[in-house]
Amino acid sequence: MQLGLLYSGGKDSTLAALLLENFYDVTLATAHFGITDDWQHAERAAAELDLPFRRIELDDAVAHDAAERIREDGFPRNGIQHVHQEALEALAAADDFDAIADGTRRDDRVPTVSRAQAQSLEDRHDVDYVAPLSGFGRGAVDRLVDSTLDVTVGPSEEIPRADYEAELRAVIADQGGQEAVAECFPDHDQTHVTGRR
Amino acid sequence: MQLGLLYSGGKDSTLAALLLENFYDVTLATAHFGITDDWQHAERAAAELDLPFRRIELDDAVAHDAAERIREDGFPRNGIQHVHQEALEALAAADDFDAIADGTRRDDRVPTVSRAQAQSLEDRHDVDYVAPLSGFGRGAVDRLVDSTLDVTVGPSEEIPRADYEAELRAVIADQGGQEAVAECFPDHDQTHVTGRR
Repeated sequence: MQLGLLYSGGKDSTLAALLLENFYDVTLATAHFGITDDWQHAERAAAELDLPFRRIELDDAVAHDAAERIREDGFPRNGIQHVHQEALEALAAADDFDAIADGTRRDDRVPTVSRAQAQSLEDRHDVDYVAPLSGFGRGAVDRLVDSTLDVTVGPSEEIPRADYEAELRAVIADQGGQEAVAECFPDHDQTHVTGRR
Repeated sequence: MQLGLLYSGGKDSTLAALLLENFYDVTLATAHFGITDDWQHAERAAAELDLPFRRIELDDAVAHDAAERIREDGFPRNGIQHVHQEALEALAAADDFDAIADGTRRDDRVPTVSRAQAQSLEDRHDVDYVAPLSGFGRGAVDRLVDSTLDVTVGPSEEIPRADYEAELRAVIADQGGQEAVAECFPDHDQTHVTGRR
């Protein structure tokens, strides 16, 4: 069975790939807007994992709606949730997947996919949606990552990855400068996977 | 890392074992009351999977409380949920597991383990609780089972398995005869795993 997994090159989506690869033919799919080249970080991580990679280009309007929401809110959660839902819709609309997946964890605050949203995706697109990490908490994920992956950890703005954050930061910086970015995005560490152990 | 998985010999808990076995040293653990020998069905399925097996004997009081609840309700859901929670507590209390798990699916009505219950188990017992199928719906589970396991399907009372239902049926039959059992347990098909594909 062919499965498309939304992939950032970070530890969660990489661990999701390892959990799924014995059961599906996994393609790592990175959603982006064509604003920056950060998707290439995910492509490199995919090459390290020796799994096929695909870009999914989302409409510019999705980025601008998300950036506007983030600036209005003063925090990124709802804007990132919006992009994630659009990315899942785009992945589900691709013709060649029997199943789609993401790396959301049990205790993620964003992005989240409710049971109702999952069922709706499945029904509308005739595809299975699976979230292999949704039954794993942060501690369990960290311990599994330690035992299976080589990872670089650091502040969000220094770690190369291909989640939506880098491009949304670029949109907001273009509109309001680095000051606007700093107002909306809290400091936190991110991870980038550099290989299997 | 040592992981104990609550195991019935059915398809869900078997698929959970396959998802986990590349990441943990998995022991299949069957909770029972010593009322019937149905746990032996799980032991045989575990032998087919070539994974270590353990019995976890729960207190008779748990079975009787559950049976009383089921007869009062007229349906098994709350009684089975009670037994499952007690089984998870017993598994978490075992000293030799870094993580415990079960085979609950995204759309299971019973048993269910909420995020708050999961976090409480982890905090009180210093153990990870993981539910590898909680991000998979029924359709996705069925398709994965078809591609990985040999399964027998049939009505609950004819399929050999080691969930709590067989022993709770026995307790209720002992109290109120087969009529009481028929009043509380709806007809539905169960599965028993007979091997890997």
